[in-house]
Amino acid sequence: MTDNFRDTLETFENQYPNRDYLIEIECPEFTSVCPKTGQPDFGTIIYSYVADKKCVELKSLKMYLQQFRNEGIFYEAITNRLLDDFVAVVEPRQLTIRAVFTPRGGISTEITIYYPQDES
Amino acid sequence: MTDNFRDTLETFENQYPNRDYLIEIECPEFTSVCPKTGQPDFGTIIYSYVADKKCVELKSLKMYLQQFRNEGIFYEAITNRLLDDFVAVVEPRQLTIRAVFTPRGGISTEITIYYPQDES
Amino acid sequence: MTDNFRDTLETFENQYPNRDYLIEIECPEFTSVCPKTGQPDFGTIIYSYVADKKCVELKSLKMYLQQFRNEGIFYEAITNRLLDDFVAVVEPRQLTIRAVFTPRGGISTEITIYYPQDES
Amino acid sequence: MTDNFRDTLETFENQYPNRDYLIEIECPEFTSVCPKTGQPDFGTIIYSYVADKKCVELKSLKMYLQQFRNEGIFYEAITNRLLDDFVAVVEPRQLTIRAVFTPRGGISTEITIYYPQDES
Amino acid sequence: MTDNFRDTLETFENQYPNRDYLIEIECPEFTSVCPKTGQPDFGTIIYSYVADKKCVELKSLKMYLQQFRNEGIFYEAITNRLLDDFVAVVEPRQLTIRAVFTPRGGISTEITIYYPQDES
Amino acid sequence: MTDNFRDTLETFENQYPNRDYLIEIECPEFTSVCPKTGQPDFGTIIYSYVADKKCVELKSLKMYLQQFRNEGIFYEAITNRLLDDFVAVVEPRQLTIRAVFTPRGGISTEITIYYPQDES
Amino acid sequence: MTDNFRDTLETFENQYPNRDYLIEIECPEFTSVCPKTGQPDFGTIIYSYVADKKCVELKSLKMYLQQFRNEGIFYEAITNRLLDDFVAVVEPRQLTIRAVFTPRGGISTEITIYYPQDES
Amino acid sequence: MTDNFRDTLETFENQYPNRDYLIEIECPEFTSVCPKTGQPDFGTIIYSYVADKKCVELKSLKMYLQQFRNEGIFYEAITNRLLDDFVAVVEPRQLTIRAVFTPRGGISTEITIYYPQDES
Amino acid sequence: MTDNFRDTLETFENQYPNRDYLIEIECPEFTSVCPKTGQPDFGTIIYSYVADKKCVELKSLKMYLQQFRNEGIFYEAITNRLLDDFVAVVEPRQLTIRAVFTPRGGISTEITIYYPQDES
Amino acid sequence: MTDNFRDTLETFENQYPNRDYLIEIECPEFTSVCPKTGQPDFGTIIYSYVADKKCVELKSLKMYLQQFRNEGIFYEAITNRLLDDFVAVVEPRQLTIRAVFTPRGGISTEITIYYPQDES
Repeated sequence: MTDNFRDTLETFENQYPNRDYLIEIECPEFTSVCPKTGQPDFGTIIYSYVADKKCVELKSLKMYLQQFRNEGIFYEAITNRLLDDFVAVVEPRQLTIRAVFTPRGGISTEITIYYPQDES
Repeated sequence: MTDNFRDTLETFENQYPNRDYLIEIECPEFTSVCPKTGQPDFGTIIYSYVADKKCVELKSLKMYLQQFRNEGIFYEAITNRLLDDFVAVVEPRQLTIRAVFTPRGGISTEITIYYPQDES
Repeated sequence: MTDNFRDTLETFENQYPNRDYLIEIECPEFTSVCPKTGQPDFGTIIYSYVADKKCVELKSLKMYLQQFRNEGIFYEAITNRLLDDFVAVVEPRQLTIRAVFTPRGGISTEITIYYPQDES
Repeated sequence: MTDNFRDTLETFENQYPNRDYLIEIECPEFTSVCPKTGQPDFGTIIYSYVADKKCVELKSLKMYLQQFRNEGIFYEAITNRLLDDFVAVVEPRQLTIRAVFTPRGGISTEITIYYPQDES
Repeated sequence: MTDNFRDTLETFENQYPNRDYLIEIECPEFTSVCPKTGQPDFGTIIYSYVADKKCVELKSLKMYLQQFRNEGIFYEAITNRLLDDFVAVVEPRQLTIRAVFTPRGGISTEITIYYPQDES
Repeated sequence: MTDNFRDTLETFENQYPNRDYLIEIECPEFTSVCPKTGQPDFGTIIYSYVADKKCVELKSLKMYLQQFRNEGIFYEAITNRLLDDFVAVVEPRQLTIRAVFTPRGGISTEITIYYPQDES
Repeated sequence: MTDNFRDTLETFENQYPNRDYLIEIECPEFTSVCPKTGQPDFGTIIYSYVADKKCVELKSLKMYLQQFRNEGIFYEAITNRLLDDFVAVVEPRQLTIRAVFTPRGGISTEITIYYPQDES
Repeated sequence: MTDNFRDTLETFENQYPNRDYLIEIECPEFTSVCPKTGQPDFGTIIYSYVADKKCVELKSLKMYLQQFRNEGIFYEAITNRLLDDFVAVVEPRQLTIRAVFTPRGGISTEITIYYPQDES
Repeated sequence: MTDNFRDTLETFENQYPNRDYLIEIECPEFTSVCPKTGQPDFGTIIYSYVADKKCVELKSLKMYLQQFRNEGIFYEAITNRLLDDFVAVVEPRQLTIRAVFTPRGGISTEITIYYPQDES
Repeated sequence: MTDNFRDTLETFENQYPNRDYLIEIECPEFTSVCPKTGQPDFGTIIYSYVADKKCVELKSLKMYLQQFRNEGIFYEAITNRLLDDFVAVVEPRQLTIRAVFTPRGGISTEITIYYPQDES
C-alpha cells in the first residue's frame, strides 16, 4: 500500500551531484487519522538530506504528504514509511526525518530516524 | 500491586524493528497522592525510548498513568515503577524517564532515570 | 550542635537501590540569621543527588531547613553543614548542593559544593 | 547562462591577502521565480568567506542578486549557482552559502553548501 | 598604597578547608574616579573563588570596595589590584575576577583575570 | 596615511605585565564614508586583547576612531587597518577585532580578524 | 492603469452579511520597484477589513499583489492604490491597510490608511 | 543657516490629498557634533506625519539629515530645526518628531515635539 | 547649602520658546551617602520637562549631580532638592522627577514629584 | 500586642510638607508564621504613600518588619496590621499597601488596602 503513495513523489535531476550540500524541508501541515480512535492527528515533518543524483520536487512532496489525510496509521509507522518512501524514490546520500506531533489526550510525541544506519 | 497497573499498558508491533529510532512522549497531566499527607501531587512525565519489537499504544499509556490518580506513592517510587512497568511491557532497547513535579511546601522535585544501566 | 538539626532529617528506603537515578530538589524559602549583624538572610538551596539505600523524605527536609530560621551562621558554613548533614543521614552516592543568597549591602553570593571529592 | 550573471559581480583587491579573516554578508531580500509554477520565491542568502586576493564589492553583489528577480530556477540550483559564481569571480579561500527560503504551500526549505569540499 | 586598602579586608576561618567548593560574589555598586578626567567611573565586580584556609567576610569586602570611591585609577589597574589584594589577604586556591564597567564616551569595557596562572 | 591616524592612539604602561588578562572594549558609534558612493557607513567595533607592556588609553581610542568619520574606506580595509594600528601601537599578546556594520542596500556585513596568525 | 490591476481581484459572496466581523490578511512578500532609483523595494502589506456583501478571494489577492513586482511606484502611492482597488472591488464596510517597508539607506517607512474617513 | 539645509529636502505630489493617512519614517543613523565639546553625537529621528499636498522624498530626507554630520548643534535645537524645516518644505497637516540620543557622560536624552500646537 | 550646588547648573537659551516640547533626561549613575549609616546610596534620576526660556546644559547637569557623591542626604530630600534646584535655575513650564534607588537591606525605594502643583 | 511592634517604626521630619509626592517602598523579604500550621510564610510588601509631616525611616521599617519573623498571623491580618501601624506612626496623607505571598498548596494570595477610605 505504501507503494501507491510513493508514486506521487517526483524528483528532478540534481545538477550538482559531485557536491555534498544539505537540504532541509519543514512541512508543518501534516495530518493523518488515528487508527484506533478515528480522530485526526496533526504534526510537523522535517526532512534533512544530502542529495545524490536526484532532488525531491516540493509540490509533489506536498501532494504526497496530503495523501495521509484520511489514512489510519500510527505515529511510528508514519515516520518510518515517510523514510522508506523518500529513500526509495529520492535515493539520498543521507537523510534524517523528525516528526513532531501535537498533543493528544494531553500527551505529545516526537519521533526521529537517521538514514543510513547499521541494520540489525 | 505494580503488576495490576502494568496490565493496562498495551503495545502494537513495531513494524520497523531493524531500525533504531527515537520516540519521545510527554505527559503533562500526571497526578498521584502523597503517601504521608494524603494531598494530591502533580507532575509531567517524559518518556524517550528506542523501540525493539513493540511500541507503546498512547491511549493505553494515558489510561495506565490515570491509575495513579488515587495511589499513595513517593516521587522516587513513581518514577522507578513507571520505568519498571514500561520495560516489562514494551521491552525497549533504550529508555529515559524524566519526572518533573510541581512545588510542595515551597519545594520542587525532578527525577531522571536511564535504562539500561549497569546494576550494582 | 549540627547533630541536633540533622536528627530532623528522615529517610525512607530506596526501593530501587540497584539503579542510579538523579533526584533534584529546589528549596527557595531558606532563611537564617547573619552571625555578625543579627539580620536575616534569605536564599534558595538546590540539592541534586543519586540515592544509595535511602531517599530523603521531603516534609522532613522542609522541617530540617526551617530550623536554620533563627540560627546565626555564615553562608559558607550553611552550605557545608547542609552537605555534611545530608551525607551523614541520607548517605547518597553523589550530591551537589548549590546555595544562592539574596543581595546584602548590594552584594550577592552563590556557593556550590560537590560530593564526593578527593579530600586534601 | 550562469556566466552572464556573474559578469555583474565586481571585486576589489584584498589589501591584506596574507591574513585569514572572516567576512559575513547577509542578503535578506533575494527573490526569484519558481520554474514549475511561475510564482515568485523569496529568501535570505548568507555568505561567509575568507578572501584570498579579492573581496566582493557589495553594490555589485546586490545588483548581481537582483538579476534573479525574474529568473525561473529551483532552490537547489540557485544555491549551487550562487556558489559557482562566487567561487569563479572572487576565488575565496573558503566559502559557506546558506539559503533560507520562505514557506511555499506550507513548506519551507533551507540549503547549505561548503567550499572547498572533496569532489566525488 | 594598595597595602592600606587591603587592610580593610577581613577573613574568617574556612571551617571546611579539606573540601573544594566555589564561592561567587557579585558587587554591582563599584565606583571609582578616572585618573585622567577626574570623572566618576561605575562598574560591577564579580569574584569566583575556591577558599583555602580563609573566607572573605562580606561586610569587610563591601567596605574595602567603597575605599575606591574617590580613588583615581584606570580600569586595568583596578582589576589587577583587586586581584592582588584578594590573593594577599584571602589566599584562595583559585580566583577569577571579572570587572564590567559602564560606557564612557560611547565605549564600554570588561576585564577578566584568572589566578593562579603561569607568570612570564 | 594609516600612520597619521595611529599617532592619535595613546597607551599607558601595563602595570601587571607578567599576568595574562583579557580586556574587551566595545565601540558602538563607529562611522566612516563609503569610498564608492560617498554615503556614511555605521558600525560597532569590538576589541578583545591581552596586553603585553602597554594598555590602550580609552579616550585616545575614541579620538582615534573618530578620525574615520570623514574617511572614504571599505569595510574590509577598516577592520584590517584598525588591527594594524592597534598592533603597531599597543603591541598586544593577542587581539581579536570584530566589526559589525549596519545594513546597506538591504545587505549587512560583519568582519572578524584574529591576531597573531600564521602569515602565508 | 490602476484599473487593469484591480481586474485581477476576485470576490465571493459573504454568506453572513448581517454580522460585522474582522478579517485580517498579512502579505509579507510584497515587492515593487522604486520609481527614482529602479531598485526593488520590499514590504509587508496588512489588510484588516469588515466585509459587507463580498469577501476577497485569497489566491486572486496574491496574483493581484504580484502585479506590482516590476511596477515603479512610491510607497505612499502603493498604499493608497491598494486601498482604492480593494474598496472598488470588495466594497468593505471598514478597511485598514498598513504597509511596512524594509529599510532603504538606513531609513524605514510604515504607512497606515483607514477607510472610510471624512473627505475634505 | 537653517534655510540652506532645508533646500535639500525634496517633495513629490501627494496623489491622495483628500485622505488622511499616517506616514512613519525612522532614521536610526543620525549624527551631529556637540557645540560645546566638539564630540560627535548619535541618535534616532522618528517622523510621523499626515501629508497634505506634498510627501517627503526619502532619498532627499537622507541627504538632508546627512548635512548635520559635521554641524555643531544642541539636541533641543536639532529637534526643533528638523520640525521647522519639515513643516516649511512639506507643509504636513500633522507631524510628531521624536529624537532619541545615545548616552553621553552616562546621561541619555529624548525629545518630542508635536505640530501643530497653540503658540503662546 | 542647596544654593551652592545649584550654582553648578548651567542653562542655554531655549531657541524655540513659543513651542511646548518634552525633554526627557535619564541619569543612571547617581550616588550619594546615607546620612544615618554613612554608606553610599545608588540610583537613577529621570527628568521630564517642558522648557520655558531656558534649557539645562547636560554637562553641567552631570557635574551638578556628581556633587551629591559625598553628600549625606535622605532619598526624599534628594528628590525634592533636585526639583527645587531645577525649578530655581531652569524655570521650566512643567517638570516631573522620578528617582529610583537600588535596594538597601532588601528594601527598594522610588520617589516621584510633579511640578507645578497646588501648594497647601 | 500590635502596639509593641509599631514602637520600632521611626520617622524623620518631611522637609517638603507643602508638596504632594509619591514614595514607593518594596520589601521582598517578609516572613511570618502560619497560625494554623506553624509553618513559615513568605511574601513581598509594597508601600506607596504621600507623606504629610513625617517620612518613615527605612532601617526602622526593616527592623519593624523583621518582628513578624516568628509571629503567628493570617495574611489578611498581617496586611491590615501593617496599615494600622504605618498610619498610626507616619500619619501619611495617602497610603496603599500591597502584600504578595508565595504559593502554599499550589495557591498564591495577594492583598491590597487603600487609605484613607470611607468607613462604614
